[in-house]
Amino acid sequence: MAEGAQFTPAEADASYEVFHTDCLARDVVDHVTSRWGVWVLIALRNGDLRFFELRRSIRGVSEKMLAQTLRALVHDGLLWRKVEPTTPPQVTYGLTEFGREIGEPLTELFDRITRRLSPSGTQ
Amino acid sequence: MAEGAQFTPAEADASYEVFHTDCLARDVVDHVTSRWGVWVLIALRNGDLRFFELRRSIRGVSEKMLAQTLRALVHDGLLWRKVEPTTPPQVTYGLTEFGREIGEPLTELFDRITRRLSPSGTQ
Repeated sequence: MAEGAQFTPAEADASYEVFHTDCLARDVVDHVTSRWGVWVLIALRNGDLRFFELRRSIRGVSEKMLAQTLRALVHDGLLWRKVEPTTPPQVTYGLTEFGREIGEPLTELFDRITRRLSPSGTQ
Repeated sequence: MAEGAQFTPAEADASYEVFHTDCLARDVVDHVTSRWGVWVLIALRNGDLRFFELRRSIRGVSEKMLAQTLRALVHDGLLWRKVEPTTPPQVTYGLTEFGREIGEPLTELFDRITRRLSPSGTQ
Protein backbone atom coordinates (compact mmCIF):
# COMPACT_ATOMS: atom_id res chain seq x y z
CA MET A 1 0.00 0.00 0.00
CA ALA A 2 2.83 2.37 -0.80
CA GLU A 3 1.72 4.12 -3.97
CA GLY A 4 -0.99 6.76 -3.87
CA ALA A 5 -4.32 5.67 -5.29
CA GLN A 6 -6.35 8.18 -7.16
CA PHE A 7 -10.03 7.78 -7.55
CA THR A 8 -12.10 9.29 -10.34
CA PRO A 9 -15.73 8.37 -9.95
CA ALA A 10 -17.67 8.01 -13.19
CA GLU A 11 -20.02 10.71 -12.00
CA ALA A 12 -18.32 13.70 -10.43
CA ASP A 13 -18.85 13.43 -6.69
CA ALA A 14 -17.50 16.20 -4.53
CA SER A 15 -16.96 13.95 -1.50
CA TYR A 16 -14.29 11.94 -3.33
CA GLU A 17 -12.51 14.91 -4.88
CA VAL A 18 -10.21 14.91 -1.88
CA PHE A 19 -8.52 11.74 -3.14
CA HIS A 20 -7.07 13.68 -6.05
CA THR A 21 -5.34 16.40 -4.17
CA ASP A 22 -5.25 15.69 -0.46
CA CYS A 23 -2.41 13.25 0.17
CA LEU A 24 -3.15 13.19 3.90
CA ALA A 25 -6.61 11.66 3.36
CA ARG A 26 -5.17 9.11 0.96
CA ASP A 27 -2.51 8.14 3.50
CA VAL A 28 -5.06 7.77 6.29
CA VAL A 29 -7.22 5.55 4.07
CA ASP A 30 -4.18 3.39 3.38
CA HIS A 31 -3.22 3.14 7.07
CA VAL A 32 -6.76 2.38 8.25
CA THR A 33 -7.26 -0.37 5.67
CA SER A 34 -3.73 -1.75 6.00
CA ARG A 35 -3.08 -5.38 6.90
CA TRP A 36 -2.69 -4.65 10.62
CA GLY A 37 -4.25 -1.19 10.96
CA VAL A 38 -7.70 -2.72 10.72
CA TRP A 39 -7.08 -5.05 13.67
CA VAL A 40 -5.38 -2.43 15.82
CA LEU A 41 -8.34 -0.08 15.48
CA ILE A 42 -10.82 -2.86 16.26
CA ALA A 43 -8.76 -4.23 19.18
CA LEU A 44 -8.60 -0.82 20.87
CA ARG A 45 -12.37 -0.32 20.72
CA ASN A 46 -12.62 -2.53 23.83
CA GLY A 47 -10.20 -0.30 25.77
CA ASP A 48 -6.63 0.99 25.90
CA LEU A 49 -3.87 -1.60 25.56
CA ARG A 50 -0.15 -1.88 26.21
CA PHE A 51 2.16 -2.76 23.30
CA PHE A 52 2.61 -6.40 24.37
CA GLU A 53 -1.16 -6.79 24.88
CA LEU A 54 -1.81 -5.56 21.35
CA ARG A 55 0.83 -7.91 20.02
CA ARG A 56 -0.77 -10.83 21.87
CA SER A 57 -4.27 -9.84 20.66
CA ILE A 58 -3.37 -9.70 16.99
CA ARG A 59 -2.07 -13.10 16.05
CA GLY A 60 0.54 -13.24 13.32
CA VAL A 61 1.79 -9.65 13.62
CA SER A 62 5.53 -9.13 14.09
CA GLU A 63 6.90 -6.66 16.59
CA LYS A 64 8.31 -4.57 13.74
CA MET A 65 5.06 -4.48 11.74
CA LEU A 66 3.01 -3.62 14.82
CA ALA A 67 5.39 -0.80 15.79
CA GLN A 68 5.24 0.56 12.23
CA THR A 69 1.43 0.36 12.12
CA LEU A 70 1.10 2.09 15.50
CA ARG A 71 3.49 4.86 14.46
CA ALA A 72 1.42 5.58 11.33
CA LEU A 73 -1.88 5.62 13.22
CA VAL A 74 -0.50 7.91 15.95
CA HIS A 75 0.87 10.21 13.25
CA ASP A 76 -2.58 10.30 11.56
CA GLY A 77 -4.20 11.33 14.85
CA LEU A 78 -6.20 8.10 15.19
CA LEU A 79 -4.33 6.85 18.28
CA TRP A 80 -2.67 8.42 21.30
CA ARG A 81 0.47 6.98 22.88
CA LYS A 82 1.39 7.29 26.55
CA VAL A 83 4.85 6.44 27.87
CA GLU A 84 5.30 5.87 31.60
CA PRO A 85 8.87 6.45 32.83
CA THR A 86 9.25 3.06 34.48
CA THR A 87 12.04 0.53 33.82
CA PRO A 88 11.35 -0.72 31.22
CA PRO A 89 9.03 2.09 30.05
CA GLN A 90 5.35 1.14 29.82
CA VAL A 91 3.77 2.24 26.56
CA THR A 92 -0.01 2.37 26.29
CA TYR A 93 -2.13 3.03 23.20
CA GLY A 94 -5.73 4.18 22.90
CA LEU A 95 -8.18 5.61 20.37
CA THR A 96 -8.52 9.35 19.95
CA GLU A 97 -11.94 10.82 19.14
CA PHE A 98 -11.06 10.56 15.42
CA GLY A 99 -9.97 6.93 15.88
CA ARG A 100 -13.24 6.12 17.61
CA GLU A 101 -15.17 7.81 14.79
CA ILE A 102 -13.34 5.66 12.22
CA GLY A 103 -13.59 2.49 14.29
CA GLU A 104 -17.39 2.57 14.15
CA PRO A 105 -17.91 1.90 10.40
CA LEU A 106 -14.89 -0.44 10.46
CA THR A 107 -16.52 -2.58 13.15
CA GLU A 108 -19.82 -2.44 11.26
CA LEU A 109 -18.01 -3.64 8.13
CA PHE A 110 -16.57 -6.69 9.87
CA ASP A 111 -19.77 -7.44 11.73
CA ARG A 112 -21.62 -7.53 8.41
CA ILE A 113 -19.03 -9.83 6.85
CA THR A 114 -18.91 -12.25 9.77
CA ARG A 115 -22.70 -12.25 10.16
CA ARG A 116 -23.17 -13.02 6.48
CA LEU A 117 -20.57 -15.80 6.48
CA SER A 118 -21.40 -17.39 9.82
CA PRO A 119 -23.02 -20.82 9.48
CA SER A 120 -26.28 -19.52 10.94
CA GLY A 121 -26.50 -16.74 8.31
CA THR A 122 -28.08 -13.47 9.40
CA GLN A 123 -28.56 -13.57 13.14
CA MET B 1 -2.24 -9.49 2.51
CA ALA B 2 -1.45 -13.12 1.91
CA GLU B 3 -1.13 -14.56 5.40
CA GLY B 4 -4.22 -15.13 7.52
CA ALA B 5 -4.64 -12.75 10.42
CA GLN B 6 -6.05 -14.12 13.59
CA PHE B 7 -7.66 -11.85 16.09
CA THR B 8 -7.97 -12.55 19.80
CA PRO B 9 -9.72 -9.70 21.55
CA ALA B 10 -8.67 -9.09 25.14
CA GLU B 11 -12.23 -9.71 26.20
CA ALA B 12 -13.82 -12.77 24.65
CA ASP B 13 -16.24 -11.46 22.06
CA ALA B 14 -18.28 -13.99 20.14
CA SER B 15 -18.61 -11.79 17.07
CA TYR B 16 -14.85 -11.99 16.38
CA GLU B 17 -14.47 -15.69 17.11
CA VAL B 18 -15.02 -16.33 13.44
CA PHE B 19 -11.56 -14.95 12.63
CA HIS B 20 -9.99 -17.93 14.37
CA THR B 21 -11.67 -20.68 12.49
CA ASP B 22 -13.50 -19.36 9.47
CA CYS B 23 -10.97 -18.83 6.70
CA LEU B 24 -13.65 -17.58 4.32
CA ALA B 25 -14.48 -14.58 6.55
CA ARG B 26 -10.80 -13.80 6.92
CA ASP B 27 -10.31 -13.92 3.16
CA VAL B 28 -13.27 -11.64 2.53
CA VAL B 29 -11.94 -9.13 5.08
CA ASP B 30 -8.60 -9.17 3.25
CA HIS B 31 -10.19 -8.70 -0.17
CA VAL B 32 -12.53 -5.92 0.93
CA THR B 33 -9.74 -3.95 2.61
CA SER B 34 -7.17 -4.69 -0.11
CA ARG B 35 -5.39 -1.92 -1.98
CA TRP B 36 -7.85 -1.95 -4.90
CA GLY B 37 -10.83 -3.82 -3.44
CA VAL B 38 -11.82 -0.74 -1.47
CA TRP B 39 -12.02 1.42 -4.60
CA VAL B 40 -13.80 -1.18 -6.72
CA LEU B 41 -16.56 -1.53 -4.11
CA ILE B 42 -16.92 2.24 -3.79
CA ALA B 43 -16.82 2.82 -7.57
CA LEU B 44 -19.62 0.33 -8.21
CA ARG B 45 -21.93 1.96 -5.68
CA ASN B 46 -22.81 4.54 -8.36
CA GLY B 47 -23.85 1.81 -10.82
CA ASP B 48 -22.60 -1.16 -12.84
CA LEU B 49 -19.42 -0.63 -14.84
CA ARG B 50 -17.55 -2.32 -17.68
CA PHE B 51 -13.96 -3.46 -17.09
CA PHE B 52 -12.41 -0.54 -18.97
CA GLU B 53 -14.65 1.94 -17.13
CA LEU B 54 -13.50 0.55 -13.79
CA ARG B 55 -9.90 0.75 -14.92
CA ARG B 56 -10.38 4.39 -15.96
CA SER B 57 -12.14 5.23 -12.68
CA ILE B 58 -9.44 3.85 -10.42
CA ARG B 59 -6.27 5.69 -11.26
CA GLY B 60 -3.03 3.82 -10.83
CA VAL B 61 -4.45 0.30 -11.03
CA SER B 62 -2.88 -2.05 -13.58
CA GLU B 63 -5.00 -4.30 -15.79
CA LYS B 64 -3.56 -7.34 -14.03
CA MET B 65 -4.23 -6.07 -10.50
CA LEU B 66 -7.77 -4.99 -11.39
CA ALA B 67 -8.53 -8.40 -12.95
CA GLN B 68 -7.15 -10.14 -9.87
CA THR B 69 -9.15 -7.94 -7.49
CA LEU B 70 -12.37 -8.44 -9.46
CA ARG B 71 -11.86 -12.23 -9.55
CA ALA B 72 -11.50 -12.34 -5.74
CA LEU B 73 -14.57 -10.16 -5.13
CA VAL B 74 -16.70 -12.19 -7.57
CA HIS B 75 -15.51 -15.38 -5.84
CA ASP B 76 -16.48 -13.93 -2.44
CA GLY B 77 -19.99 -13.18 -3.70
CA LEU B 78 -19.59 -9.41 -3.43
CA LEU B 79 -19.76 -8.75 -7.19
CA TRP B 80 -21.52 -10.31 -10.16
CA ARG B 81 -19.93 -10.51 -13.62
CA LYS B 82 -21.85 -10.51 -16.89
CA VAL B 83 -20.23 -11.44 -20.20
CA GLU B 84 -21.97 -10.45 -23.43
CA PRO B 85 -21.00 -12.60 -26.43
CA THR B 86 -19.98 -9.72 -28.65
CA THR B 87 -16.64 -9.34 -30.44
CA PRO B 88 -14.75 -8.48 -28.33
CA PRO B 89 -16.86 -9.74 -25.38
CA GLN B 90 -18.29 -7.01 -23.14
CA VAL B 91 -17.76 -7.72 -19.46
CA THR B 92 -19.82 -5.81 -16.90
CA TYR B 93 -19.47 -5.84 -13.10
CA GLY B 94 -21.95 -4.87 -10.41
CA LEU B 95 -22.56 -5.20 -6.69
CA THR B 96 -24.54 -8.16 -5.33
CA GLU B 97 -26.78 -7.65 -2.30
CA PHE B 98 -23.84 -8.69 -0.09
CA GLY B 99 -21.54 -6.25 -1.90
CA ARG B 100 -24.01 -3.44 -1.37
CA GLU B 101 -24.29 -4.35 2.32
CA ILE B 102 -20.49 -4.14 2.67
CA GLY B 103 -20.21 -1.00 0.56
CA GLU B 104 -22.31 0.98 3.03
CA PRO B 105 -19.93 1.00 6.05
CA LEU B 106 -16.99 1.26 3.65
CA THR B 107 -18.40 4.46 2.15
CA GLU B 108 -19.18 5.74 5.65
CA LEU B 109 -15.56 5.06 6.65
CA PHE B 110 -14.16 7.11 3.79
CA ASP B 111 -16.71 9.87 4.20
CA ARG B 112 -15.68 10.23 7.84
CA ILE B 113 -11.99 10.36 6.94
CA THR B 114 -12.40 12.88 4.14
CA ARG B 115 -14.81 15.02 6.18
CA ARG B 116 -12.37 15.13 9.10
CA LEU B 117 -9.39 15.97 6.90
CA SER B 118 -11.06 18.41 4.53
CA PRO B 119 -9.93 22.04 5.04
CA SER B 120 -13.40 23.05 6.20
CA GLY B 121 -13.45 20.33 8.90
CA THR B 122 -16.83 18.76 9.67
CA GLN B 123 -19.28 19.91 7.06
